[in-house]
Amino acid sequence: MSEQALKDLLIEELQDTYSAETQILEALPKMAEAASSQQLKQAFQSHLQETKGQVQRLEQIFQKLNAQPGGNTCEATQGLIEETEELIGGGHPPEVLDVALVMSAQKVEHYEIASYGSLRTLAETCGMTEVAQLLQQTLEEEKAADEKLNQIAEGEVNAKALKAA
Amino acid sequence: MSEQALKDLLIEELQDTYSAETQILEALPKMAEAASSQQLKQAFQSHLQETKGQVQRLEQIFQKLNAQPGGNTCEATQGLIEETEELIGGGHPPEVLDVALVMSAQKVEHYEIASYGSLRTLAETCGMTEVAQLLQQTLEEEKAADEKLNQIAEGEVNAKALKAA
Repeated sequence: MSEQALKDLLIEELQDTYSAETQILEALPKMAEAASSQQLKQAFQSHLQETKGQVQRLEQIFQKLNAQPGGNTCEATQGLIEETEELIGGGHPPEVLDVALVMSAQKVEHYEIASYGSLRTLAETCGMTEVAQLLQQTLEEEKAADEKLNQIAEGEVNAKALKAA
Repeated sequence: MSEQALKDLLIEELQDTYSAETQILEALPKMAEAASSQQLKQAFQSHLQETKGQVQRLEQIFQKLNAQPGGNTCEATQGLIEETEELIGGGHPPEVLDVALVMSAQKVEHYEIASYGSLRTLAETCGMTEVAQLLQQTLEEEKAADEKLNQIAEGEVNAKALKAA
């Protein structure tokens, strides 16, 4: 009985993450458009492609679990995207907006790192090795995306913002 | 001029984080009350004390920057706490709710890890070494809190949820 309750929680949290990913799919093209650094623009575009694969991976997991992906809106991601839209419309100079976009994107990445890390551990606890492996793959992609944003911030975006006339 | 625009962004993001921390101060006692594992309850109570110190550290930074802490509600944290409240009221068995509370708390921790990491880097970019050091201290506390939650999940909470009758 309790194992079923844990599986219910796993499905509920997977639905939350599915909602997060589909919201991110809509937000990333706007972030790419708002970015002025070519490196940052490309990072958002390439993460958009990666996110499409992550959504498919989640759909594969829902099929394995005989569950539906919909029905659980992720309020945290709604808030994260709302903040990003405020920054985009906030009248910051382009180079400063790039810094802000990196910050926003890293908050989203960390939301996902926490989500996929917990989901992976929960799937392992439930003895679902294959599901745990799929979640681990996405977790590694999210960590790499966060690391790439670190490099962009430290290597280019922050310095440009400081030097801009 | 651009350095001022970067400082404006730093202040705006510090205010967002201040709003996040004050919301978390209100949420943690409810999470401690909802937890059934004593270890988890204590972790939330001890993080409440730590959060009070982090709020003071932010106030110290605002003083240094001659800025006010208020005026920027953190919508992402609002969403995170809304989700946590849904979980608390969601009718999960106590052991499963503990697993859910750890997941929620780790999402909050990761939001803060991303925030303090970006803030620290931004303060460094602006040449504010002392501010960057204060932010680094909190960043380390948040990472340690996340690690502690990992240990609680892997060591006790998930196993109990699985074994519960």
